[in-house]
Amino acid sequence: MPLKRLLAKRTENMGASAIREILKVVSQPGMVSLAGGIPAPESFPLEIMTELTARVIEKYGSQAFQYDLTEGFTPLREILAEYLKERGVKAKPDEVIVGTGSQGFLDAMGKALITPGDKVAVEAPTYLGAIQALNPYEPDYISIATDDSGVIPDSLEEVLKNNEIKLIYLVPTFQNPTGRTITLERRKKIAALIIKYRALLIEDDPYSMLRYRGEPLPPIKTLAPDNTVYISTLSKVFAPGLRLGFCAAPPVILRWLVLVKQGVDLHTSTFNQALAAEYMAGGYLERHLPKILGIYKPKQEAMLSALSMYFPADFYFSRPEGGMFIWVAGNLDMDVVYEKAIEKNVAFVPGKYFFTKKGEGKGTMRLNYTMSDEATIDRAIKTLSGVIRNFK
Amino acid sequence: MPLKRLLAKRTENMGASAIREILKVVSQPGMVSLAGGIPAPESFPLEIMTELTARVIEKYGSQAFQYDLTEGFTPLREILAEYLKERGVKAKPDEVIVGTGSQGFLDAMGKALITPGDKVAVEAPTYLGAIQALNPYEPDYISIATDDSGVIPDSLEEVLKNNEIKLIYLVPTFQNPTGRTITLERRKKIAALIIKYRALLIEDDPYSMLRYRGEPLPPIKTLAPDNTVYISTLSKVFAPGLRLGFCAAPPVILRWLVLVKQGVDLHTSTFNQALAAEYMAGGYLERHLPKILGIYKPKQEAMLSALSMYFPADFYFSRPEGGMFIWVAGNLDMDVVYEKAIEKNVAFVPGKYFFTKKGEGKGTMRLNYTMSDEATIDRAIKTLSGVIRNFK
Repeated sequence: MPLKRLLAKRTENMGASAIREILKVVSQPGMVSLAGGIPAPESFPLEIMTELTARVIEKYGSQAFQYDLTEGFTPLREILAEYLKERGVKAKPDEVIVGTGSQGFLDAMGKALITPGDKVAVEAPTYLGAIQALNPYEPDYISIATDDSGVIPDSLEEVLKNNEIKLIYLVPTFQNPTGRTITLERRKKIAALIIKYRALLIEDDPYSMLRYRGEPLPPIKTLAPDNTVYISTLSKVFAPGLRLGFCAAPPVILRWLVLVKQGVDLHTSTFNQALAAEYMAGGYLERHLPKILGIYKPKQEAMLSALSMYFPADFYFSRPEGGMFIWVAGNLDMDVVYEKAIEKNVAFVPGKYFFTKKGEGKGTMRLNYTMSDEATIDRAIKTLSGVIRNFK
Repeated sequence: MPLKRLLAKRTENMGASAIREILKVVSQPGMVSLAGGIPAPESFPLEIMTELTARVIEKYGSQAFQYDLTEGFTPLREILAEYLKERGVKAKPDEVIVGTGSQGFLDAMGKALITPGDKVAVEAPTYLGAIQALNPYEPDYISIATDDSGVIPDSLEEVLKNNEIKLIYLVPTFQNPTGRTITLERRKKIAALIIKYRALLIEDDPYSMLRYRGEPLPPIKTLAPDNTVYISTLSKVFAPGLRLGFCAAPPVILRWLVLVKQGVDLHTSTFNQALAAEYMAGGYLERHLPKILGIYKPKQEAMLSALSMYFPADFYFSRPEGGMFIWVAGNLDMDVVYEKAIEKNVAFVPGKYFFTKKGEGKGTMRLNYTMSDEATIDRAIKTLSGVIRNFK
């Protein structure tokens, strides 16, 4: 069959993720990967999984294996509403919906809201998975400038003033790829701006529970509730393989997200939702979270101190208080650094992939520290530093 | 916020499913539902779930809870390739992908292939979930005529000759909503036609394992492998709440389905896929399937004999050899019958909802027999017959 005749016009926008190609390199024997973005397997509550599954089967019986509401499993929605309340997000259980990963909501937002050519404002750099989810709906991206304190409010206002923006997409806390967090002062300014310009924000918040230092910040959703679709996930505090995300949105949006989701997967796995409900309501999450933080904190500290020790003084790196990533910037083409680094068995992701405009971010890289132990991280950063210094 | 400004153009095509509204009525106390399309909870292998989960946790450990390939969990893809081979479908493990229900593949096919205005040929009547999955991609539907032996090949040829058809969507075995099966002779003719016209077929096959009588028929995929995307599900032979579908497609299509799926949910639940791999590879499915058939066969026989006994002689009803549905046609407006029937506490789905053209199918209804016991089915059909006879 002639392929051209088969594909949809929108499909031409889709390309295989370059990061996927990089992650294939990573699987080579001996390679130390600072490239991935996946949780450490030792962070999963594996020791309680047998108990949890037994509890779910006993408590819910065949209901845990039956078709369920598109909106989500009622006991999970109830406990998620409480969980959100502790974070200042006011949402009744029926204002919370459960999805197949937070990815599912990014797709649903694109499908429900974006007509080809609509403008979506994103941080520069931004999360690649969001771009992949939204691309099929053919938006145009407008960049918002960022610095070490996250999104620059003046840049956001400029963008909102000069464009009809359909959606703003932000990861305000421990952002992927930079690890940066928008300060409280800026959160307030951003909330005021989206209210002023009657804009709609997707606040993607996968990492805020992974805080190793400092005080929690309120989600922007708490400051502009009617203008914000808040999306989060259990991938970082339970297990990513269960594919559980959740979303609190204004009712007018929620209704369409449910309708879209129904066409895509009918609903998210009932059994996995029941496991999550027991995990959260049974106090397991509360007890397990400190263990997760105890795994990641020393890894992050190892990377930060290795960067301080080995990297050239004129190189910037972010110093996040949590999350999974550190962002590096320096006056070098990181594609070239990448080629040399993998020869020395160290992989990372060149930062250019996280920008929607070609040519941006050439001198940046994303480093992940969740998958290696402290000694390996130290060694890998030292190696990377050697590669960099060879170019200078 | 002004809603009109927010929604995408495509969203205007989406409406809440009318069947969902009917299913709300069904939940009223005392209502006998012949309306749903969901498996009987007693058909789930609940007694082995604890054992299965323990085996998966022991065998795969944290891998069962980690991110995995978009294409699917390798052990499951391997056993699915064998499962397909037993049904005559030749596909290597890397030509089989796993999705979040078969619904996910209907969405992915629409997203990858349909540009607004493209023509999709469907049976009249057809499966509503497919329409819901494809609608957001704004196709035009062309109807293919059907009779008691399924799709009429001459009608298909007429459709292919006079239209540029992007996709054909068929449920060849125990179709939803009619229960009808395309005969072997017609399968051969259909295969020859799609090859002749270089057309692409989605063969949706959720029900063929639920055969209570007669001999299995080869999937059309076995007769026109390069032109057919074969989609099936574990919802009817394992548990629908686990949301596991699978697909065997020509490589040129498979690649785009994977790319699309990556943007939608990254991958399907690893844990649930591992459960399915153990269920199939460990011989559980083989042992459990006869139990499922033993549950449904007497229910179906009860409904068929009640229809013979009570319904007016000039009413048609299908006599499927398997599946979950029976189709009824008679010279009455079934919307009116529906209103009276729910007053008598019997619910069904008026057949008009399964047609893509307004005004068609007024005199039809879909009856489901999987969720009630035999005595209740007999009583409900008797009641329904009374309602119908009152109109005549």
